[in-house]
Amino acid sequence: MTVREKSAAGPGVENCPEDVLDTLARGRAGALTRLTEFLAIPSISTDPAYHDACLEAATWCAETLRGIDFEVSVEPTDGKPMVVARWSTGKGDEPRPHVLFYGHYDVQPPDPLDAWNAPPYDAQNVHDPTHGKIIVARGASDDKGQVMTFVEACRAWMDTTGALPVDVTVLLEGEEESGSPSLEPFLEAHGKSLKADIALVCDTGQWDADTPAITAFLRGLAFSELTLSGPSRDLHSGIYGGPAQNPIRVLGELIAGLHDESGRITIPGFYEGVSDPSPEQRQAWRALNFDGEGFLGEVGLSAPAGEEDYSVVEQLWCRPTIEVNGIVGGYTGPGTKTVIPAEASAKFSFRLVPGQEPDKVIEGLHAYISDRLPADVTATYRGEGGSPAVGFDTSAPAFRATAGALESEWGKVPVIVGCGASIPIVEAFRTRLGMDALLVGFALEDDAIHSPNEKYNLSSFEKGARSWVRILAALGATRAAA
Amino acid sequence: MTVREKSAAGPGVENCPEDVLDTLARGRAGALTRLTEFLAIPSISTDPAYHDACLEAATWCAETLRGIDFEVSVEPTDGKPMVVARWSTGKGDEPRPHVLFYGHYDVQPPDPLDAWNAPPYDAQNVHDPTHGKIIVARGASDDKGQVMTFVEACRAWMDTTGALPVDVTVLLEGEEESGSPSLEPFLEAHGKSLKADIALVCDTGQWDADTPAITAFLRGLAFSELTLSGPSRDLHSGIYGGPAQNPIRVLGELIAGLHDESGRITIPGFYEGVSDPSPEQRQAWRALNFDGEGFLGEVGLSAPAGEEDYSVVEQLWCRPTIEVNGIVGGYTGPGTKTVIPAEASAKFSFRLVPGQEPDKVIEGLHAYISDRLPADVTATYRGEGGSPAVGFDTSAPAFRATAGALESEWGKVPVIVGCGASIPIVEAFRTRLGMDALLVGFALEDDAIHSPNEKYNLSSFEKGARSWVRILAALGATRAAA
Repeated sequence: MTVREKSAAGPGVENCPEDVLDTLARGRAGALTRLTEFLAIPSISTDPAYHDACLEAATWCAETLRGIDFEVSVEPTDGKPMVVARWSTGKGDEPRPHVLFYGHYDVQPPDPLDAWNAPPYDAQNVHDPTHGKIIVARGASDDKGQVMTFVEACRAWMDTTGALPVDVTVLLEGEEESGSPSLEPFLEAHGKSLKADIALVCDTGQWDADTPAITAFLRGLAFSELTLSGPSRDLHSGIYGGPAQNPIRVLGELIAGLHDESGRITIPGFYEGVSDPSPEQRQAWRALNFDGEGFLGEVGLSAPAGEEDYSVVEQLWCRPTIEVNGIVGGYTGPGTKTVIPAEASAKFSFRLVPGQEPDKVIEGLHAYISDRLPADVTATYRGEGGSPAVGFDTSAPAFRATAGALESEWGKVPVIVGCGASIPIVEAFRTRLGMDALLVGFALEDDAIHSPNEKYNLSSFEKGARSWVRILAALGATRAAA
Repeated sequence: MTVREKSAAGPGVENCPEDVLDTLARGRAGALTRLTEFLAIPSISTDPAYHDACLEAATWCAETLRGIDFEVSVEPTDGKPMVVARWSTGKGDEPRPHVLFYGHYDVQPPDPLDAWNAPPYDAQNVHDPTHGKIIVARGASDDKGQVMTFVEACRAWMDTTGALPVDVTVLLEGEEESGSPSLEPFLEAHGKSLKADIALVCDTGQWDADTPAITAFLRGLAFSELTLSGPSRDLHSGIYGGPAQNPIRVLGELIAGLHDESGRITIPGFYEGVSDPSPEQRQAWRALNFDGEGFLGEVGLSAPAGEEDYSVVEQLWCRPTIEVNGIVGGYTGPGTKTVIPAEASAKFSFRLVPGQEPDKVIEGLHAYISDRLPADVTATYRGEGGSPAVGFDTSAPAFRATAGALESEWGKVPVIVGCGASIPIVEAFRTRLGMDALLVGFALEDDAIHSPNEKYNLSSFEKGARSWVRILAALGATRAAA
């Protein structure tokens, strides 16, 4: 534990992580054995032939968590069961921080099998020239290895102190690789009992092999489908071309006007409530030297097309957008048909950032359009909806505690990253439980998740568990310090 | 014959229309009998059950034209035969004006049959409160009645003088109501022998019951299909939205920029060679009091969307346009898919006016687009082509002769109208034979062509034939006077 972390945690810290980290170090071999057992279960959720293996994995998780004094139930769903495990002091008079940990016990299919160097469910400990020791198996990184970083951290706490520094609920699902069809109904039914102060989702990666990351910003979404109606029927462009209004032309003009020359969106009120990242955050992101050129180059692009004065990373992580996702109107078959169509449609979607409300953004779109509609053209909308962005207050105690703990372990300030897209589990937690999530994980880009020879660095596994030991301590200290 | 026409025709006129008009008047009853015979043949080209009736109609036309000394052949095609009839002085040393008259002997199906007041092929002479005597039958106006105005005019000339004032070729097709599939191959094969100085197409209408019209301007056409390619694949708008260029947005911007605020097209060089109609022509058109509001109102529009400072009639008849006939890109199925598409496409077509060349206009479109394409977006084109506008020089002798002849007959200056669309037969004559066409016809808007109880005013039939007598004389005089 660094001096700095001690200082951040302040007085009143009951538990001493160094002891717990020592326990973890002594239990290294047992932890690896347990992970190997877990990896041996071919819990492929997409293939009905492996349904029993999924049940076996759920049972294995339940037993493992029971073994470290969690109260566990395996809850049936229409698909694979949910493992729900709880540990709390039970002292209701002294409320403590409560975290919900999320992971999944199912894995991707291993195909193509013959591309594996060893059977995918027989975990191999291999020496890799870049990463040193690695564990190779389906699910090693996604997500069994990551789940076990947290479970082993809890085990070390229990073995050392007989308690956890915070109340913990663990939710492990078995359908993440199949689109999580049972998750929302389950949260709907059991939401109240699952709600915690914060969700910790361990299914993401580090910034690089030496640098931890916290995903703290996820853009929200709003969407709307617009249909413009002009003439009462499709017109012959020879007979009517000139005086007749063409809805495709009007739609083109509406689309063209959505951005000004600097790439800023012109919808009234669109940026109300939107803050720029702090100068410190911007500086930190710039220091990442994110390879925007490489990022765009992989999909055949070279020039950032977003707002001027924002880097590619900022355009992705903290700036809202509007996109036309689809457009159709008039004759689109082969050859020529000289028609002025009665209608033209476009599907719009927005990526939102904290401070924006989907409803207001859609209202703004309507206002933008009605302000610009020429005579004889009417607009109708359908398929509208959305969800707000997730943006952690990076100065909040829980966030600072998590970041400080990671820094203590890795000797580097964690990179606070955003994610341009909403992530279903995070959205579900927000929508169903009203709970924000921090995404902390220890995967690396070259872990080959979903591919043959998936691996997890032994250092990810061990330092991941050590990170959770520290994070749990730091989160516990937040309330104690408050 | 009015003093004015005598004066316009000038010295050297060999034939005196008054005699011919007298012949026509005396032969009134016979003409009506012949039209009734022609109308009795149910020559429905779209219905194979009436194939023999179509052959019968072709034979009837051939016999009728042979009866007035035309040299006639009935030429087979893959569909219905073409009737080709020729009359000329045969004096090769003294070249005379040569006109090609076009009409069609096929008719629309009569459905719904029970909406007819009498059987559709049993022509009825009825007194109509508005129009006086009318002839009611399928094909009375479209196009058998109109064809016979010309044939009866030729008969009167032959009966009176034993000759026609100009060399005449008559081309009657039997597939006009089925899209004329055999016409282009026929012109391709026999073009040279059909080429005349001018084509006279009798398949259009008067301005109103008292005012004749000549359609002298037909807009041309150019077309191009544009595909914009951006990212190398469809992108997730969460992961890439912001810095990634969206081809639909670029397409919208291109479409929006095609017109300036006054509705003028911004493509470089687009208006090169385009002349405004003469002040006299504009004045004449304004005097028509064309009901632009009613024209647009019928298709659910109210405000002319074309160039400022041009009336609806001018926008339609003498101003070029660009239209987007179709557009497609991204996801267009039900619901939402947050994609940034790799591609977006639009089909463009231009209506051209005299002075514009399709190739140059398409080149201009390419230049416009390449000037505006942002980084990372490429444009490809396909399906390009077109045909120039038809615009008669209204001061040319043949035009003035025709207009003068119509004025003599009707006591009113004929309205010189344009047509916003190209007309296939006119385009075929231009493309295949290099010959321009004037459209002169005597139909009225309430003739109910293609509908039950189709009619042709007896006055259209009789004054139509008188008009052709005068037009043939006047055209004959143009060369004599030259």
